[in-house]
Amino acid sequence: MPRVVRLAVAQSGPIQKDERRERVVARLLAMLKQAAARRCHLVLFPELALTTFFPRYYEAERADMDRWFEAEMPGAATRVLFDTARELGIGFSLGFAELTPERRHFNTQILVDAEARIVGRYRKVHLPGHAEFEPQRAWQHLEKRYFEPGDLGFPVWRTMGGVMGMCICNDRRWPETFRVMGLQGVELVMLGYNTPTLNSMKPEETAATRMHHNHLCMQAGAYQNACWVAGCAKAGDEDGYDLMAGSCIINPDGEIVALAQTSDDEVIFHDCDLDACAFLKQTTFDFAAHRRIEHYGLISSQTGAVPPPE
Amino acid sequence: MPRVVRLAVAQSGPIQKDERRERVVARLLAMLKQAAARRCHLVLFPELALTTFFPRYYEAERADMDRWFEAEMPGAATRVLFDTARELGIGFSLGFAELTPERRHFNTQILVDAEARIVGRYRKVHLPGHAEFEPQRAWQHLEKRYFEPGDLGFPVWRTMGGVMGMCICNDRRWPETFRVMGLQGVELVMLGYNTPTLNSMKPEETAATRMHHNHLCMQAGAYQNACWVAGCAKAGDEDGYDLMAGSCIINPDGEIVALAQTSDDEVIFHDCDLDACAFLKQTTFDFAAHRRIEHYGLISSQTGAVPPPE
Repeated sequence: MPRVVRLAVAQSGPIQKDERRERVVARLLAMLKQAAARRCHLVLFPELALTTFFPRYYEAERADMDRWFEAEMPGAATRVLFDTARELGIGFSLGFAELTPERRHFNTQILVDAEARIVGRYRKVHLPGHAEFEPQRAWQHLEKRYFEPGDLGFPVWRTMGGVMGMCICNDRRWPETFRVMGLQGVELVMLGYNTPTLNSMKPEETAATRMHHNHLCMQAGAYQNACWVAGCAKAGDEDGYDLMAGSCIINPDGEIVALAQTSDDEVIFHDCDLDACAFLKQTTFDFAAHRRIEHYGLISSQTGAVPPPE
Repeated sequence: MPRVVRLAVAQSGPIQKDERRERVVARLLAMLKQAAARRCHLVLFPELALTTFFPRYYEAERADMDRWFEAEMPGAATRVLFDTARELGIGFSLGFAELTPERRHFNTQILVDAEARIVGRYRKVHLPGHAEFEPQRAWQHLEKRYFEPGDLGFPVWRTMGGVMGMCICNDRRWPETFRVMGLQGVELVMLGYNTPTLNSMKPEETAATRMHHNHLCMQAGAYQNACWVAGCAKAGDEDGYDLMAGSCIINPDGEIVALAQTSDDEVIFHDCDLDACAFLKQTTFDFAAHRRIEHYGLISSQTGAVPPPE
């Protein structure tokens, strides 16, 4: 019996700084209903889907940052998303800023099944940017200030008929992300992103080059691990700061099979046949037959680059 | 002072099974001279550049395979390549089947400087294919029979003004290849390939999809390690078996900046500014700032994929 996940990727248009959670959730809810009407099994929302991309704003004090975080999931504003998903029998994956009971701060994405149970939790490992105000940047990217690096590694979950994994935004640029999941047999990786359309450190870098980077990393992760990859953007102009769109679904050949056409709220769909992962997993990427771990030691033993002496 | 390597990639057209080494070397020599006339510093030749892609032919006996191997480098047929390169003041990188004095067999690529000294040696780590005759294949791919896996890891060399690395063919599909070199600060990775235009195990896989795989892996390796990558094909119809072309030079943004247009002997060129690697190495891919090796352990500790229990 084929294992087909009918997947929706619910790209979000911009969320302005003063936009309230309830209004944002209403937008997500409309897209969830659209996906359910198409009989999707699962809908993917972006990274930090409930707020503007707040790491662009410097705050001196920790307490002034916490308003962007969710201390409960579901909480007052998000419960309707869980309740509606349960009623409609659709799963979802949602990114948000997580404040734990121990007052730890993570950039988190959860996987919620069709009974509205949280069956998977991922905390972003590769935090880009910086921790202190950097005046040379055209805008700030303070993820290393707002969050601590994820402490859960790259787990996968056998759920919804397949082996599911998650990662978030900058994680997609690091092949280690996909490989650790590939070594656990992942069949579908879901990720959200908030990525500036231009580079705050290199004004001449074009939007096209940056979109190419975005897709290249996801396509390589899909092919080299013989899995589906779905990327969901928060896109458009947030209070004058533009985020790239380009949400997509990628097959295990690394080919884009669905692509968002706007920079606004937009749902794209694809029937992802998880059995389509098997051919490459059993041939070109039969890891047991072909990987040579005796030569990979540096990858997990050395953090930074060490060039040979001049 | 900018560090620009004027690089030539000398794609080779097909080499038939009965084509003698001297004739093949004459073809390589013509391309080397073409590169020297363009004042290139370095010319890249393909994997197994001196013979047809012999791993497609099953031989029961080891002794019957050794005629494809070079016991000396330079040897009688190849010395003219070294002598001419020295005269013209151009370096080169060449793939060939290496038979060591200890009678070990490797799929090898060397880096030769403008004084015709062998300054680098790489032995292919990721051998694709199989070791025994497999009747279900449309043709054989017996690299695991002809060669043992490389025993030198993925070294880099500071030479010719930069940090140089090599890999061979199937190595490019494995992100570990590029990452181990990236962790040593590589600025230019040179690789050759002999890749069938169609898939012996999946006749419906198109040539276009396979070319996409080829470029995707090299482009991702370049971007994710902020280095130049050059790929050199042996292409065209070898005794009825077609090999893909698509030789290319890729910049540190993962963009193809030079691309072969034929499936025959053809030289492409690019001025590779090694200093163009610095921006990404210092920002997005500042490994010391962003890599999280505490979560990468599986990559070097576990060879095969282990999915979660059903």
